[in-house]
Amino acid sequence: MDAIKSLSLLTRACPYLARTGLAALHGAAGGSGVRGLSTSAVELARCSVCPGHTGQSALLAKASECPVVGPSIRANEAAAPKQAAASKQAAASCPYAGKCGDTPGRAGSAELPASLGSQEAAFDYEGLYQAKLAKKHADKSYRYFNNINRLASKYPQAHTANPSNMVTVWCSNDYLGQSRNPVVVDAMTAALNTYGAGAGGTRNIAGNSGLHVRLEAELAGLHRKEAALVFSSCFVANDATLSTLCSALPDCVIFSDQMNHASMIQGIRHSKARKHVFEHNNLAQLEQQLAQYPRATPKLIAFESVYSMSGTVGRVPEICALARKYGALTFLDEVHAVGMYGPRGAGVAEHYDYDASLRAPAGQRVPGSVLDQVDIITGTLGKAFGIVGGYIAGSSALVDMIRSYAPGFIFTTSLPPPISAGAVASIQYLADSQRERFLQQTHVRQLKADLARAGIPVVPNPSHIVPVLVGDAARAKRASDMLLAEHSIYVQSINHPTVPVGEERLRITPGPGHDAAMRARLVAALDAVWSALGLRRSADWEREGGRCGVGESRTNSELHVGWKRGVDFVWEDHQLKQAHDYELARTGAVPVAPALLPMIWAA
Amino acid sequence: MDAIKSLSLLTRACPYLARTGLAALHGAAGGSGVRGLSTSAVELARCSVCPGHTGQSALLAKASECPVVGPSIRANEAAAPKQAAASKQAAASCPYAGKCGDTPGRAGSAELPASLGSQEAAFDYEGLYQAKLAKKHADKSYRYFNNINRLASKYPQAHTANPSNMVTVWCSNDYLGQSRNPVVVDAMTAALNTYGAGAGGTRNIAGNSGLHVRLEAELAGLHRKEAALVFSSCFVANDATLSTLCSALPDCVIFSDQMNHASMIQGIRHSKARKHVFEHNNLAQLEQQLAQYPRATPKLIAFESVYSMSGTVGRVPEICALARKYGALTFLDEVHAVGMYGPRGAGVAEHYDYDASLRAPAGQRVPGSVLDQVDIITGTLGKAFGIVGGYIAGSSALVDMIRSYAPGFIFTTSLPPPISAGAVASIQYLADSQRERFLQQTHVRQLKADLARAGIPVVPNPSHIVPVLVGDAARAKRASDMLLAEHSIYVQSINHPTVPVGEERLRITPGPGHDAAMRARLVAALDAVWSALGLRRSADWEREGGRCGVGESRTNSELHVGWKRGVDFVWEDHQLKQAHDYELARTGAVPVAPALLPMIWAA
Repeated sequence: MDAIKSLSLLTRACPYLARTGLAALHGAAGGSGVRGLSTSAVELARCSVCPGHTGQSALLAKASECPVVGPSIRANEAAAPKQAAASKQAAASCPYAGKCGDTPGRAGSAELPASLGSQEAAFDYEGLYQAKLAKKHADKSYRYFNNINRLASKYPQAHTANPSNMVTVWCSNDYLGQSRNPVVVDAMTAALNTYGAGAGGTRNIAGNSGLHVRLEAELAGLHRKEAALVFSSCFVANDATLSTLCSALPDCVIFSDQMNHASMIQGIRHSKARKHVFEHNNLAQLEQQLAQYPRATPKLIAFESVYSMSGTVGRVPEICALARKYGALTFLDEVHAVGMYGPRGAGVAEHYDYDASLRAPAGQRVPGSVLDQVDIITGTLGKAFGIVGGYIAGSSALVDMIRSYAPGFIFTTSLPPPISAGAVASIQYLADSQRERFLQQTHVRQLKADLARAGIPVVPNPSHIVPVLVGDAARAKRASDMLLAEHSIYVQSINHPTVPVGEERLRITPGPGHDAAMRARLVAALDAVWSALGLRRSADWEREGGRCGVGESRTNSELHVGWKRGVDFVWEDHQLKQAHDYELARTGAVPVAPALLPMIWAA
Repeated sequence: MDAIKSLSLLTRACPYLARTGLAALHGAAGGSGVRGLSTSAVELARCSVCPGHTGQSALLAKASECPVVGPSIRANEAAAPKQAAASKQAAASCPYAGKCGDTPGRAGSAELPASLGSQEAAFDYEGLYQAKLAKKHADKSYRYFNNINRLASKYPQAHTANPSNMVTVWCSNDYLGQSRNPVVVDAMTAALNTYGAGAGGTRNIAGNSGLHVRLEAELAGLHRKEAALVFSSCFVANDATLSTLCSALPDCVIFSDQMNHASMIQGIRHSKARKHVFEHNNLAQLEQQLAQYPRATPKLIAFESVYSMSGTVGRVPEICALARKYGALTFLDEVHAVGMYGPRGAGVAEHYDYDASLRAPAGQRVPGSVLDQVDIITGTLGKAFGIVGGYIAGSSALVDMIRSYAPGFIFTTSLPPPISAGAVASIQYLADSQRERFLQQTHVRQLKADLARAGIPVVPNPSHIVPVLVGDAARAKRASDMLLAEHSIYVQSINHPTVPVGEERLRITPGPGHDAAMRARLVAALDAVWSALGLRRSADWEREGGRCGVGESRTNSELHVGWKRGVDFVWEDHQLKQAHDYELARTGAVPVAPALLPMIWAA
């Protein structure tokens, strides 16, 4: 048998050997390359495929069972039957045996016509997929999707894979329950019946309808910008806009908050522009970075208003001031804020000028307002607005430029007529109704107060998101599974890479549909799970010095939280009272947990 | 006035000077840098901002009106009033005057608090957007979206922005009219009422329902693969899958057909893998490229089954054979084929084994079939299936790996319940019904025959797409506009960058809803427009040597067209007859243009 030839095949083809560094080593180990490998017991011992084998014949025996190089080696073995016997002994323990019969890797096998064959085996694609998945399992970041079917007529109730198994959903981003609002459903039904299920083309080719034009006008008006543009999702909107804009701006430099969403990170990467990441909400660091460049250098500051996993809020006015000072564009992701902040649901940027925005006619600029200082706003139709899709809003020329150059916009089927119609109805509804925002915010305050009393550690923030710190991936998943199985409560665990390792959490999002009884059950269930699993309570985190703002000093966390100093919630007491009174006058009744009202009105 | 200081500001800040190469030149022109620029009439004459001005004072006068450097120069001018007068003279002709008051560029103006000011002006963002748009206008690639509202009850009729102005749509990618199929609409309505308008989360966080699981099982079964994964669109599916897969495969090399869709090109670029582009359907060139690499090197061949703008068909079996020979993965985009080819609508890969696929139970592999040799299939729910969304199908491990690693899948709201439910209904319906495919294909054949008789030049292909060659951007748009305004027929013109310059076309897509009268009107209208605009007919192209297969020799075009030698249509005569007879037995009637039947049955 030609052992050298087989080993040569092996080292050229085996992805596992390559990964352990053997292929690189064997050249350095001695002048004879493959021979150097085949005789070096030290190097062979590094092989991750066959950790128990350290001799040349054992390596060959193992390798002959490998799905990648096996066929070629076995062909050589025909001339050396004694090696084949050794190979068979090793077969039982090969982790990939019999798993990759369907891959191109089999091309070297007997099934292939001889004319097409090659002595060298193909790359083991299936083996690589398996290895990538094994890595996810090993670090506990492998995701098992829960089967949750939210019921329009009973939301926040849902059934699991078993239709008779009902659970209460506490982690949906259908923040205001708009996905089941009859105003939205009726508009979608009408458009579905009138214009059909799909758009039938890209915006340029047969896929542009009056509904698309109307939706974009509605969004531009909402954000008091000249124009807006709709995408398949806000992931696509962020990715396409940042990559198109920042590659068009000559020598653009991007400044990105470290907690920015994956879609912005992807768009920034795809732009190939230079990038600085600043610590979450750290304006001093941002200014240091900005000051390194001439004022005339094109710059873009990318940040969010409500950060989805922490609930902290971007320091919008301060960042806009820095942008003016250093000549930068501001790019603000309001995905987790639109529909929920501002008196008309335009987001956090609008909320800073709550009273002025209430007075100004829809669609008109409010000069000097925070919203007016933001150059580009991106948002979603898939969370508080209850459906799906994303968008940008900004100046006419900016929007037209993105419309004209971004492949992710140009070359994709536009949103279906029912989606566009439902979105218009949802935006218009939430521009008027204060009921959903009032109920969401009061329920959030009540839950945060209840959890504080129970010592359940909540990451401090001024928004509607209630992140409960666990600090360990396996235990966060275990807590989520226990809540679902034993308490019929669905709260997804959030693990790496969505949050950093050590900051794993349960992310709770109270909405207008959660009532006092549901909230009481949730708090009791969390208390029981915390005890059963021995998870750290607020006092434990404080003793350990704190994490993510939990158990940390007020001064430290204030910077991180991002809202006005001394104000605990974006929705201030007097604004909630104003919303309440407006709804009372409009509809005659606002259902709310009675225990809460004194807490707010006393302020 | 400090002219040197102003010029220094100008050359550092002005994007237009930088673009004309002045900034680079001035260093080379003389040792004194800025002084060298300010005194060189030759160099000043190159400035694109002020082509009429070649002297230093004129340049400064013009520059002071520039939105970029104007404020700083004007500040200097306070000490030199005579220059200010010259500036005002030039103001009237500045293309950007008064256009960018809302940009950060104004930061240098009086509105900004002095403490935040800076002598240097910010970059002129609005000016750049305008310049990018001006470029589009100049090369005629600027896109004006037509407002087309397809009516579910009267499709292929639609109304324009004026609801009483009815037109016939001949260019929709709702190829089979499934967007108005009651089976689809009813399934969507039911899901909308039961589960609401939106999914309310990512697949991992509250956005995974039984409908998503069922849709993916349906798609895996359709393509006889182990698994499938749904995305917001097939643009996202292609981009996310190619970039994630090919960056995970170590040192992967990608081989890409030159006519591949923008989404694949983007995914390939984002993977950062090495890439070879081969001429459309040129297998000899593909093999040359493949043969440059060891068999063990990871490789992926990316191609389409039906190319949307030419209607040509990828040479699937030959490419699969090359993939086996050289150890490559095959990545096949069936976006313009699913629902329409194969006896169950699984696409062109299924159509190669038409009879075997008819016999095999749904969801089971057909060993040795072309479909079975394709590793990764991508498709859309937004064209023949009539709704929106995209997907991949492949081995379980591949799909799980993409599911676990692709940001474009992980971090985006999942498809709404009504979309998922409608897609399941549409796929199941088209897996059985042969009516839509039969009518589409017969109408296509009839239209191609009619246009050939009229001498209207159709790019030859074996599919359902009827690309009519114009060969000039402005005239293609003019032809499209005339059809809409004078004949109430909507066919979008397709210009660069969707097709190469010189290959501009009208792209017609006959569907099951087009009847003989509509077709007669279309042919007459095209004939009239061709005469009115003096566009080239088939004979003209032939005299000029041909283009895109029009007027070219049969032998040359056959390679390009990609289907079996000597067979004009993917849907062969006997297959159409089989489909017809099946529908006749199932429903008792198949409406079809009578003139066509003898043409097919005579074969």
